[in-house]
Order: sequence, then structure tokens, then C-alpha cells
Amino acid sequence: MEILQSIADNLVAVKEKKPLVHHITNYVTVNDCANITLAIGASPVMADDMAEVEEMVSFASSLVLNIGTLNSRTIEAMLIAGKKARTMGIPIVFDPVGMGATSLRTNTAKRIIREIGPSVIRGNMSEIKMIAGLEATIKGVDSVDGEEDREQVARDLSQKLGCVIAITGKQDIIAEGNRIYHIDNGHPILSQVTGTGCMATSLIGSFCAATADCFTGAAAGVMMMGLAGELAQQSLQAGEGIGTFRVRILDHIWLMTPDHILSQGKIY
Amino acid sequence: MEILQSIADNLVAVKEKKPLVHHITNYVTVNDCANITLAIGASPVMADDMAEVEEMVSFASSLVLNIGTLNSRTIEAMLIAGKKARTMGIPIVFDPVGMGATSLRTNTAKRIIREIGPSVIRGNMSEIKMIAGLEATIKGVDSVDGEEDREQVARDLSQKLGCVIAITGKQDIIAEGNRIYHIDNGHPILSQVTGTGCMATSLIGSFCAATADCFTGAAAGVMMMGLAGELAQQSLQAGEGIGTFRVRILDHIWLMTPDHILSQGKIY
Amino acid sequence: MEILQSIADNLVAVKEKKPLVHHITNYVTVNDCANITLAIGASPVMADDMAEVEEMVSFASSLVLNIGTLNSRTIEAMLIAGKKARTMGIPIVFDPVGMGATSLRTNTAKRIIREIGPSVIRGNMSEIKMIAGLEATIKGVDSVDGEEDREQVARDLSQKLGCVIAITGKQDIIAEGNRIYHIDNGHPILSQVTGTGCMATSLIGSFCAATADCFTGAAAGVMMMGLAGELAQQSLQAGEGIGTFRVRILDHIWLMTPDHILSQGKIY
Repeated sequence: MEILQSIADNLVAVKEKKPLVHHITNYVTVNDCANITLAIGASPVMADDMAEVEEMVSFASSLVLNIGTLNSRTIEAMLIAGKKARTMGIPIVFDPVGMGATSLRTNTAKRIIREIGPSVIRGNMSEIKMIAGLEATIKGVDSVDGEEDREQVARDLSQKLGCVIAITGKQDIIAEGNRIYHIDNGHPILSQVTGTGCMATSLIGSFCAATADCFTGAAAGVMMMGLAGELAQQSLQAGEGIGTFRVRILDHIWLMTPDHILSQGKIY
Repeated sequence: MEILQSIADNLVAVKEKKPLVHHITNYVTVNDCANITLAIGASPVMADDMAEVEEMVSFASSLVLNIGTLNSRTIEAMLIAGKKARTMGIPIVFDPVGMGATSLRTNTAKRIIREIGPSVIRGNMSEIKMIAGLEATIKGVDSVDGEEDREQVARDLSQKLGCVIAITGKQDIIAEGNRIYHIDNGHPILSQVTGTGCMATSLIGSFCAATADCFTGAAAGVMMMGLAGELAQQSLQAGEGIGTFRVRILDHIWLMTPDHILSQGKIY
Repeated sequence: MEILQSIADNLVAVKEKKPLVHHITNYVTVNDCANITLAIGASPVMADDMAEVEEMVSFASSLVLNIGTLNSRTIEAMLIAGKKARTMGIPIVFDPVGMGATSLRTNTAKRIIREIGPSVIRGNMSEIKMIAGLEATIKGVDSVDGEEDREQVARDLSQKLGCVIAITGKQDIIAEGNRIYHIDNGHPILSQVTGTGCMATSLIGSFCAATADCFTGAAAGVMMMGLAGELAQQSLQAGEGIGTFRVRILDHIWLMTPDHILSQGKIY
């Protein structure tokens, strides 16, 4: 399929260009985000002080904003960095962690969308529904929403905001305007590790940084996480569990090849 | 034994209810805390901004407060979250990391105890002694105190504060009023990994969230860490060390079964 | 060689004394820094609030300052802690992460050097060149500079600042005044994991804390990271990658022996 080839090409481009991906993200999974960005072949930088983010983002090829542990200091830094990235025209990937759970998260996500205009928004169904102004059920930062209507929600929101929408879940949905991809890679065990969503967002940031095509980049990032999750799960032996699984995710992102994408990618 | 059956039942309850455990904790071991909470079957959320903690804790089934890397901003957030949790009547588990090492830690721990009233306090012998107003020897955030009098210290402090006291060390002590448990699971190598104390506290938060019984919950959390430590240590092969051990702790928490608790738990 | 024996002795001294190493460091790799400090046999403490750093550093045997995710709050804490450490006469190890990338980093590094006077500065070639006031090419926080003139740069800067300069890269250079060591341990894969530089700095902090000799301590810390990287890389099997490599670094730091240093250390 054409999209599989594009994703495989995108992987090659990341490894060739080693683009700098500036993150302002949460302190829970920040190490995982840095390591997965390196593992796919890009170069992470984490900087969140208002006094330096504008300067740091000026060297970057994409910007990842993640509100997992937002606070008043980092919210302002996100807005400054985002506006600079917007001026530069580099991709901005936004992860609205816990959107809808608290008014601070809801209001911050709205500000980021309104004042910056991300290129890609990646979230679970609840987060994306909340952004769309629909009813959703949130439990902390995890989605407990059903999988129905995902396609319509993604398409409508993409058209409304003029950006790529990536909904991750049992089946992943990537929408840009009227175009839509469904991705069937992944494994339920991924939801038992913290940060797999954040890491998918970092991968999207890495792929978008290497090409001008955020629709393919979002699909590539989400698919990589799914493929690595499948491989990591299959590798588990008796007596191994979620700790080993986490380690193997990084292993398999690092070992990922275009051939593996072409033979195992499930996207339509 | 009756208590072993209660702990085994508590594990089943965590996995069934998947309770939300709100953490305000340190940035050193926060990823380990999130992953161990998921591995035991609960759902972690980390949020520490004053503007959202009250709202976030309103969804939670327990609150974990850990002063490992406290600062003026997060101290206020802990007090706000703690007061809300108290009003809601959900369990509050407090980890007074480094209590006694600096006056900031001592004063903050005292404020948390006085203004919030935790349900469980888990610490090493030095930290618990300092809370009890006794002499103790601290080195950074690690205990260098002897193991003598642990039982009396735990019992007295529990009665004075009206909460469960959990002292972890070579032998663990859990006290509630006059009742006391001794736990002989664990392995000395656990002290060579950062965050095993913090992770035990997160496990206590997970167990207490699933039942109304914090005495059993504290024993369950401490025992899980000990059992996982034993299994992880036994699994080490030639050429493996503390890095692999850390990974296997998560593996064995995730793989833990009621049967394992019933056959290997050492509590009296 | 004499220096190999000194490094081996330094390892024994760390394990005997278990010195307390106070870190004010970044939230990306702080867990790795804590675990590697424990793995080598020292005792880490991370505390960064202005209200407690002076008191906490008073118990420490060395201080590690790392500006990887600096902010206005932690910059002040670093200066307070550094001045206290200077007064006490304990070693101060400074890691100028991203020096030159932004003016906040450049100015902060200059303030730390001028107002505190570190005992050891460890950085990549770009960071050290920027401190020396030379032209350098920075990409985010990673060096893209050549390896030429390293020796002269290190020697000149060491003499100018009166401290040990450690430049890590393909070949590592340790300079104190006119004396210089070259270290040929290590593996290129180390640059594909986040925090290997930060961890080398923590190891230097651990070694310097155990002896009065920061020149040997800097060489020891840098060599340990190289040796562990070699062993971790050699241990990789088919299907294993950067995730497993990270775990094995901690394993091999923990398993490191004087014999291994004496037989495998490459320093001249």
C-alpha cells in the first residue's frame, strides 16, 4: 500500500536527518519520551523555562507539547514556545493529557488550540471528545469511553480545527479533513504501561519533524508504537511481565526497519 | 492465616476496582510509582498544580503524598489536596522522605500530619522516629538507624496520631493502635534501588483505595514490595545486576497472584 | 599503570564510604542519576528547594550541579548549594548541559563557574568550547563538534579556571593543569541513550566524594561509564536493543570490580 511505503520512507528520513524535537512535557514519562525519540533516530531536547524556550525552539524541527503535569510556569512556556514554532512553520504536536478531568487542563488545552493551532492533536477518545465539545467520561487521565463514532468525531474535529487528529485506542484513527486512516497494530498490554500515549506523541513529533506531511507522520508515530508493542509482547517469556515489556518497547523501536513496517503494518 | 487471606483478597479487589490513586510525589521516582500502581492493577494520576489538585482528587479513591523533592509550590498543593481528600474520607498515605534531614522537610511533614491527618504513614526507622519526636540519625534521605524498639515506636506513634504506621527495613512493622504485624519478606538488595520505599507507598495507596481497611492495605503494600523483591532477586543470573533487578520488580508485581501471597507471605 | 590502580582503589573507597552525593539536576535523567550513584556504591540525595539546599548539602560529601532542565527556581538553588559546598570544601561537579544553546544556559553556566568555582566540569566538546569562549556548533543539547584540538582546549581551560576539565566523546580527555589523560573505553551506542553524560557526571561526583583527588575521580567516573557501555553492548543478543542496553549499563556499573578496571581500562 502507498501509505505503508510512505511510513517506511518516513522512518528512513528520521534516521537520516536526526531532527531536533523540542519537548515541553510532563515529569512522569519525560525520560521515556527522550529515549524513544532517540531510539527512532531523532534528537530530543527538553527545555521548559520561559526565559529560554523561544531560543531553544528556534533550533528545532518540531515541537511536542504535553500537559500531563502542567503548572502555571510551564503553561506559559508552552504558549511562548508554541507561538515561536508557529511563526517558524514547524510542526506542533499536542498531547492533551487528562483534557476534561480538571478545568485547568480543559482551559489550557483550549488556549493551546486557540492561541497556537497545533499541527497534530493525539489523545484517547475521551480527550478528543472533550476537545470536540462532546460528552465524555474521564477517570483521571485515562479514557473509559467507548469506541463508537470515533471516525466521525475525528473527521469533524479535524475539519473544524484544520489539523490532524489522532485517536489512539483499540483501533487507532488518524484523520485529516475528509481523509482517514485506521490502524490495527498494537496490543492491549500497552495500556498497562505509563507513558505509551506520551511516547506515541513523541514519535509523531519525530516523524513530522523529518517530513512536511503531518498526516503520514501521525500515522507513522502511532503505528510504530503499535508495532513495537506487538513485538515486545510476543517476546515475553514465562516469568516476564510489564517491566520487561517496557524495556522491549524501546528495543523494538530502535530495531524497527522499513521491511517490518511494510510486512506488518495494518493500516487502511 | 487470616491476614494473608485478607491481603490476597485485597489484591483481587485492586484488580477488580482499578481504583484511581492520585499522587503528589517527587520527580526522581515518579515514573516507577506510576508503573507500579498500574502493575498492581490500580490507575495512577499525577497532578500537582494548586489550581487543579482539589478537582483531580475528587475523582480519586486514595491520595499519596511524598515529600521526596518538595518545594514551596508542591507543598501548598499537597495541603490543598490532602484537605479535600480528608473531607471526602478517602485514604491518605504519607511518605515523609528525608524527614529530619532539613527543617523544610520536618516542618512540612508536621504540617501534613497536623493539618491533614494521614491514614497511613510509611517511612524508614529514622523518619518515623523523627516524627515521633525521638532522636534519630539521618544520612540524606536514608535511614542509618538501628532496628531496636521499632515495635514500641510504631505502636506509640500510631496511638498518638490515630493512624496506621508502617516502618520498612530489615523486618517491616505495621501498627494500628495496639495491633501490630511483622513482615519478614524482602531482600537487602531492595535498598540499592532508588524508589523502593516510594513504590511501597504507592502500593499501599493502591490497596487502601480498594478497601476501607488501611491496616490490611498497609501490610499488603509493604508485603508486595518484599515478595517482588525476593522473586526479582532469585531470578538474577550471572552477569545480571541491579538494572535487571529493577525491571523484574515490575514484572513480579504485575504477575503477583493470591496463591503466591498465601504460600510465600511471611507475616505474624 | 599507576592511574589504573588509583581508579581501582577509588572504586573500593566509594563502596566502603558510601558517600552522600547531593544532586541538583534535571528531571529527564534524574532517576538514572540516582540509580547509577547507588549502583557504584554511593548514596544519592536530590533536593532543589532554596529553603533546604544549604542544610542538605551540609551532610553531603560532594555536590553535582546539572543544568539540563534549569529554571529560575533551581538556578538560585544551585547557586546557594554551590556556595555552601565551596565553604565546606567538598568537591563540586558541574555538568553544563546545552551550554551555548540558549543565553539562559550560557549565562547560568558562567554564573556557576564565576560565583561557585566547580572542582570538575564535564561536558561534550561543544559545551566545553563554549565555556572556553571558542566557536562551537550546538544542536539542542548534543555536540556536533569535531574532535580536533580537544587536548589543547581542555588544558587551557583547566589552567584558566583552576579546575578539572572532562571532555567526553569518541575519546575522552581529562585535564588538570598540564596533566592530561586520554580514555579509550566506551562505545558509540552510548550516545543513543539519554542521560549517559549526566550519569558520567554522577559517577564523577561519587568518586570525588570518596577521595580528595578530583583528577583521578573525574577519570574514574568517565572510565566507569565507558567500561559499563562496552560490557552492556557486548551482552546484547539478537532481538535486543537500546532498552536492554540501558538496563545492562546499571547491571555492569553495579557488578564493576577493581580487577575489571585493571584489565580493561584504557587510559594513557
